[in-house]
Amino acid sequence: MAERIPILKMGEFLLVTIQVDLHDQMAMQLQEDLTSAIERTSAKGVLLDISALEMVDSFIGRMIANISSISGILDARTVVVGMRPQVAITLVELGLSLPGVETALDVDRGMDRLRAAIEGGRLDVVGCQG
Amino acid sequence: MAERIPILKMGEFLLVTIQVDLHDQMAMQLQEDLTSAIERTSAKGVLLDISALEMVDSFIGRMIANISSISGILDARTVVVGMRPQVAITLVELGLSLPGVETALDVDRGMDRLRAAIEGGRLDVVGCQG
Repeated sequence: MAERIPILKMGEFLLVTIQVDLHDQMAMQLQEDLTSAIERTSAKGVLLDISALEMVDSFIGRMIANISSISGILDARTVVVGMRPQVAITLVELGLSLPGVETALDVDRGMDRLRAAIEGGRLDVVGCQG
Repeated sequence: MAERIPILKMGEFLLVTIQVDLHDQMAMQLQEDLTSAIERTSAKGVLLDISALEMVDSFIGRMIANISSISGILDARTVVVGMRPQVAITLVELGLSLPGVETALDVDRGMDRLRAAIEGGRLDVVGCQG
């Protein structure tokens, strides 16, 4: 039904839940939509929920890494949440260790991590000014 | 890819994003999964995001009303968020006004509404004790 993956704004963060098979077109669209959403909302973090995915192949792995890099350039941190244990095993077996991508067990923990990172950043700045 | 719709726990609330065509089986599964999730997490509210849906027919309309009623019995408030304007028009034209279902424009506002409702409830209790 959806040709686009919805991007939900939650306070300072954006949440993307991937539920469907992503073909090339949709993955590109998601990258575009996400970058505009980060710009529009000044989001400081992106939560990428993949709990619905039973399999992550090299295409999806690359897309996750790309989203994380692009968001990083726009000053938004990405945390991948809800990865199934079997998916983690497959990723390692495929040699895809998602370098530079942060992960957390679930949305709650992912959000805690984003908040901590942002607070940490703010404290640093305060420290410099003092 | 997913035969189940993921239910994400965010603090005291649960978030369900509907992105795919829901056939009977999946809708039943969602109702079951959601009730177990409410019980397991003691969630006080459910956010049902339908921003990806371009069309809501009477089947989906009924499912939304059911989820709202069942959650209500389990003491969790349901707020439907992200409804597209066209969907709202269609619902009214179909005579489906979703009685008893709360709506909000987006996740942020839906969450504000849930928080306000919960805080309101707590204040009432504090009032009774004093």
